[in-house]
Amino acid sequence: MRRLVSGWNENRVAHEFTTTVRVRYAETDAMGWVYYGCYFVYFEIGRTELMRELGRPYSEIEKNGTRLPVVSTGCHFLAGARYDDLLRIVTRASVLSAYRLRFDYRIFSSEKMLCEGFTEHCFVNQDGGLAKVPRDLVETLGPR
Amino acid sequence: MRRLVSGWNENRVAHEFTTTVRVRYAETDAMGWVYYGCYFVYFEIGRTELMRELGRPYSEIEKNGTRLPVVSTGCHFLAGARYDDLLRIVTRASVLSAYRLRFDYRIFSSEKMLCEGFTEHCFVNQDGGLAKVPRDLVETLGPR
Amino acid sequence: MRRLVSGWNENRVAHEFTTTVRVRYAETDAMGWVYYGCYFVYFEIGRTELMRELGRPYSEIEKNGTRLPVVSTGCHFLAGARYDDLLRIVTRASVLSAYRLRFDYRIFSSEKMLCEGFTEHCFVNQDGGLAKVPRDLVETLGPR
Amino acid sequence: MRRLVSGWNENRVAHEFTTTVRVRYAETDAMGWVYYGCYFVYFEIGRTELMRELGRPYSEIEKNGTRLPVVSTGCHFLAGARYDDLLRIVTRASVLSAYRLRFDYRIFSSEKMLCEGFTEHCFVNQDGGLAKVPRDLVETLGPR
Repeated sequence: MRRLVSGWNENRVAHEFTTTVRVRYAETDAMGWVYYGCYFVYFEIGRTELMRELGRPYSEIEKNGTRLPVVSTGCHFLAGARYDDLLRIVTRASVLSAYRLRFDYRIFSSEKMLCEGFTEHCFVNQDGGLAKVPRDLVETLGPR
Repeated sequence: MRRLVSGWNENRVAHEFTTTVRVRYAETDAMGWVYYGCYFVYFEIGRTELMRELGRPYSEIEKNGTRLPVVSTGCHFLAGARYDDLLRIVTRASVLSAYRLRFDYRIFSSEKMLCEGFTEHCFVNQDGGLAKVPRDLVETLGPR
Repeated sequence: MRRLVSGWNENRVAHEFTTTVRVRYAETDAMGWVYYGCYFVYFEIGRTELMRELGRPYSEIEKNGTRLPVVSTGCHFLAGARYDDLLRIVTRASVLSAYRLRFDYRIFSSEKMLCEGFTEHCFVNQDGGLAKVPRDLVETLGPR
Repeated sequence: MRRLVSGWNENRVAHEFTTTVRVRYAETDAMGWVYYGCYFVYFEIGRTELMRELGRPYSEIEKNGTRLPVVSTGCHFLAGARYDDLLRIVTRASVLSAYRLRFDYRIFSSEKMLCEGFTEHCFVNQDGGLAKVPRDLVETLGPR
């Protein structure tokens, strides 16, 4: 999981955005904590709000027939979240290659980091074929 | 909620099918029981398996461009389910009108009834317009 | 489902609160709309925020060992919600009896009402036994 | 994600079990495929059924006050699953260290591998403290 951690530190990361989410009862499990699979939904919220902030809301990307399925993901858990906790999701976006976009996430409750994760996405066009990351998105997210 | 209960008893109910589902940890909540919203997923399993049993799997109905959104639903809870419980879902189907299909559900753990519910569905065609319940489905589900 | 509709109109409803929720990709299904079971999660958000507004956050009620399981629920759907829609959840609370609390919900997208539903809850104490609705909550929510 | 792949191949993996799961409508998203977060629920099913097969059902472990939270997870996606697909979950268990258990997963639809993932778990006792993997579990899962 080196890449997971290094993803956060590397220099090419250019864009970061923080949003919040309140833990729903539906997201807790019988241990009393948030179910591990729900953090991937929080990641979705993180990248959705980052893309909106960048002026490229995902809902508009999809209206043009392009989709960004997740090809790889991972998460390292440090502490759990409880019902009604107000979490802070910090998301970073970076262009990984001509065909790959990557988001790195850190989720906090108060000052405590709960987890650190990432998702890597490819671009799929209307015909279901792989597509390059659009030029303007590379310019927006690209290395500085 | 009269209709909810009477739906189960009335004479026009013609087709019944029983299937099982094992409670997932993801479906429990911090109370230690299955989250109430998850019972509607169990209802989906009940009607999916009933339709398959009737030789009309929902996946095939949808391939023809027809969809059956839920227009009304309700559930009355009597007892809770725990992680790893093996539940029994009993589902009944009936034609409510020329435009409406109804499923009634009872979910059991061992011999104890946990809940009783229903869903009512309309038919939507490829253009998004309302459609009549297909004749062959009326014949399959119709009053005996 | 008379009661579902009348619940909204009746005079005893004293407290109303509006909150918003943005539709997550995880909540949509292959029809392209929000899965029907997810509306019950939105209802949870509605009552959580109403209780917080009333100065009685559910998380604190639970810390005292009291729980409010859902004993009955229903929902009537009028239209669907899409990914990234910003929904408005209007919630009303009322005391139904010495042992029952009821919430009524209406969810809107822009000015369009998507659904109307309710949940009824009992009070369960630390020993798992039924309890009366606490006196101060009756006073807060009670008939005016 | 080297470790993810090597986890599957390494010699110490001793126990493997295959179970099936049918894709629910609730698990699909607006792309028409299973939402990426749902695969972590499938992983839960895989490890639950493997533990049951080994004669150590997780529900019993939990009754003794021990819990196995996920400390790390990852998944690499190769292809998507559709509504009603019957998936095959292949799960392997291994003891990673005195304090860590690991499960590796591969999910297939027909002969096509959809994804490959893992979860790593620690043991938490009744007091919330870290505990060693129980000796009998080491013996059951240990290196051969």
